[in-house]
Parts: sequence; structure tokens; C-alpha cells
Amino acid sequence: MAGLAGGTGLFISFEGIDGSGKSTQARLLADSLRAAGRDVVLTREPGGSPGAEDIRRLVLEGDPDRWSAETELLLFTAARRDHLEKTIRPALDRGAVVITDRFADSTRMYQGISRGDLRGMVDQLHAMMIGMEPDLTFLIDIAPEVGLARALGRNTAEQRFEDMGLALQTQMRTGFLALAAGAPRFCVIDGAGAPGAVAADVLARALARLGA
Amino acid sequence: MAGLAGGTGLFISFEGIDGSGKSTQARLLADSLRAAGRDVVLTREPGGSPGAEDIRRLVLEGDPDRWSAETELLLFTAARRDHLEKTIRPALDRGAVVITDRFADSTRMYQGISRGDLRGMVDQLHAMMIGMEPDLTFLIDIAPEVGLARALGRNTAEQRFEDMGLALQTQMRTGFLALAAGAPRFCVIDGAGAPGAVAADVLARALARLGA
Ligand SMILES: Nc1ncnc2c1ncn2[C@@H]1O[C@H](COP(=O)(O)OP(=O)(O)OP(=O)(O)O)[C@@H](O)[C@H]1O
Ligand SMILES: Nc1ncnc2c1ncn2[C@@H]1O[C@H](COP(=O)(O)OP(=O)(O)OP(=O)(O)O)[C@@H](O)[C@H]1O
Ligand SMILES: [Mg+2]
Ligand SMILES: [Mg+2]
Repeated sequence: MAGLAGGTGLFISFEGIDGSGKSTQARLLADSLRAAGRDVVLTREPGGSPGAEDIRRLVLEGDPDRWSAETELLLFTAARRDHLEKTIRPALDRGAVVITDRFADSTRMYQGISRGDLRGMVDQLHAMMIGMEPDLTFLIDIAPEVGLARALGRNTAEQRFEDMGLALQTQMRTGFLALAAGAPRFCVIDGAGAPGAVAADVLARALARLGA
Repeated sequence: MAGLAGGTGLFISFEGIDGSGKSTQARLLADSLRAAGRDVVLTREPGGSPGAEDIRRLVLEGDPDRWSAETELLLFTAARRDHLEKTIRPALDRGAVVITDRFADSTRMYQGISRGDLRGMVDQLHAMMIGMEPDLTFLIDIAPEVGLARALGRNTAEQRFEDMGLALQTQMRTGFLALAAGAPRFCVIDGAGAPGAVAADVLARALARLGA
């Protein structure tokens, strides 16, 4: 967002398949940058603002077939719009580093691949209602088997996306890597190492981008 | 929807400013057509399916400034998509008459006029995510003063749209009439008479359209 919203902040997203370590790495980067004296806002999608969290609950709870792919896409886009207006833009405008655990690339993959062939619709809606991208996107890349094993080790009420299994995760990984190859904002990080080792990679790239 | 969805049903909407008598007339028409032996589904927006009703609650309750105009538009479009998929299309496909108390024209007016100048966005979203119109739209036309007086006589938790007042209702009336002048699906009904007299007008036009 540097130069776009007028603010001097930096907008960073973490993306990757289930269990790749996005939430862990987003938190570790936030901790490191705060320790270095930066104003950091750590947030996540779907959710990230009170309204978006309410929408998130509506989408992720209940019967997996409750919403069609198209309705779900509209709801996630509404949540992202609220997140952008209420959390991301105000923080960037005051110069903060905003770190989000997932952003629009997750929608491009999940709604564009797993929920029917909606990629064209996803892109059109994004252009119309969101209209911006992170300055820097960390794609935490990992073998789907490893990610699934990690993810299934946890217990959450939001299992439905993960239940779709290994074949889908493999498609997602390929899709994320293709996205990354097409846009310079991406930085692909090998997520196979221990959390601290991965975090060191991420921090080095973030500091370079921050000119620190 | 005759000839569009493949079903033999008829899709009728009621539109008009607050307190014009949409809900009253939708119910009376449903009663009359049922008495004449028709399969009728009476529904409403926002809402009209379990998922859409949940979205409706999210949008209409709470602080009026909770959602931006754009987020609200996305939420209403998500609700409409669900309503269409779960309630309207299945009924039309089995040949029913579907009567809805408000549809997309309400969004064209409320989100297009009162919530910022979003009319272009409303139309783009409609084309992308809804893509159809009623076969017949009854615009119940009434003086804003009369509509407001009627509406304020009731007590609901969803006052926020109505609180916006007379000037807005006047703009809406003009906007609805302009919409009606531009599309042959509209039938403008004088809503000033007693409910039974208005209902007789509506029924005559509906029966003509049904070829009965
Ligand atoms: N580098 C790592 N090595 C081993 N385990 C890890 C590593 N990173 C994270 N984990 C563990 O794997 C699980 C998934 O990690 P995390 O929640 O950070 O992934 P995620 O990408 O956010 O997953 P999701 O897509 O489900 O949100 C957690 O239990 C976490 O503690
Ligand atoms: N023709 C009429 N004459 C007098 N009162 C009426 C007439 N039609 C409806 N009413 C009364 O006016 C009030 C508003 O009517 P109704 O709820 O049908 O309007 P509406 O257009 O659905 O309103 P809203 O936009 O708020 O949903 C109700 O109390 C209803 O009983
Ligand atoms: Mg996570
Ligand atoms: Mg009504």
C-alpha cells in the first residue's frame, strides 16, 4: 500500500495450503517487528474486524453445503471489504505494518479451485470491491502431506475446508506457486523447517523490504 | 422466468417506498391465487431462505453505521443469491407462482440512492451474481407522506432505513417511477385506496398475465 493509500505503512500477507504454518509465521513476524520497535497490526481472514468476524462465523459454521460457491464468495468478499475498511486501511494510513494471515489469494485458490470454477468471478469481484493487493506476500510452501498432518493435529470447529483432503491440497499448492510466479509481490518460503528457522527466512525478507 | 429457467412458473415482485403496502398486497395476491387453485410461494427480501434470513439479521440489526454501503451491498447480494437458489428457482421450476415482497429493484433504490452513489456497482453485481428479473413487478405507488405515516404506525426493530425520512422517500418514489418507465415488466398500481381496492387492481393484472 505504500504510495497507494497515501500512508507509509506496509501491507504483508501470509498464504499457503492448510497447515503450512501461516498463522505461526504471521505471529512470529509480528513479534519480531514489534521487538524491533515497529507499530504492527496482526490480523487474519476470514475475519479481522468485528463485522467480518460475524460474517466469518456465518460462513464457516454449520452444514458444509449450506452456501453455494457463489454465495460464499459474496460473503467472503463482504468480510474482506469490512476488514479492509475497518482494520487494514486505518492502520496503513497511520504508518503501521499490517500482517494478515490470509488475504485475497486464499479466495483465488479456495473459491477459484475447490468450490467450482469461479476464478473469473473471483477476479471480477476483487477488482470491483477490493481493488488492492498486499505489498508483500509470503507463500509458505510445504508438501501437502506435511501440511495435512500438522493441520489435523489441531482441533477446531472449522474442519470443513480441510476435510476436502490431499488431492485438493496438492491442487492448491500448484495453484499458489503459479500465482507466485506471476506477481513480484510474492516471496516463496520453504515451510518444511522448524518454526524458528522458517521465521528467520521470513524476517530477513521482511526487513529487506522495510529497508531496515 | 417463463422460458428462462425452463420452468413454467411466474415470478412476481412487489416494490415501492416504505409503507406503500407491498407486504399487504403481496399477501392478498397470494391468498387470491391460492383460492383460485394456483401453487403459490410467498416470499420476501431481504431474506426468503434460511441462509438469507441469517444474512438479513446481520445487516439490519445493530448500529446503522456498522457496515459501509459497499459491504451492505455485498451482503444483500449474497442474501439474494441464496434466496434465488434455495427458494425462487426451485419453486419456478416446479411451475409455481413466486410472489416476492421486494427484489432487486429495492437494492437499486436503497443502495443506489440512499447509501451513496452505488447504482453502477449495484447493476454490475446484479449482472454478475443474479442475472435475472421478475416476469412482472407491481410498483405500489403512493405519496411519501402517506407511506411514512402508515409505516410509522407499526413497531419494528428494523427502523433504520425508515428513519432516513421524507426527502429520501420522495427521491425513492421518483426513482421507482423512472425504473418502471424503463422496463415493460413493471405495472404501476395506485396504492392510495383501501387495501381491498388496491388488491383488486393487482389481481386483475396478475390474472391477465397468467392468461387466466
Ligand atoms: N515449521 C513447523 N514445523 C512443525 N510444526 C509446525 C510448523 N509450523 C507450524 N506448525 C504446527 O502445525 C500446525 C499448523 O500450523 P499453523 O496453524 O501455523 O498453520 P496454518 O497454515 O495457519 O494452518 P491453517 O491453514 O489450518 O490455518 C500447528 O499445530 C503448528 O503449531
Ligand atoms: N391501502 C392501505 N390503506 C391503509 N393502510 C394500509 C394500506 N395498505 C397497507 N396499510 C397499512 O400500512 C402499513 C404498511 O403496510 P405494509 O406493511 O403492507 O407496507 P410495506 O410497503 O410492506 O412497508 P415496508 O416498506 O415498511 O415493508 C401497515 O400497517 C398496513 O396495515
Ligand atoms: Mg492458520
Ligand atoms: Mg413490508
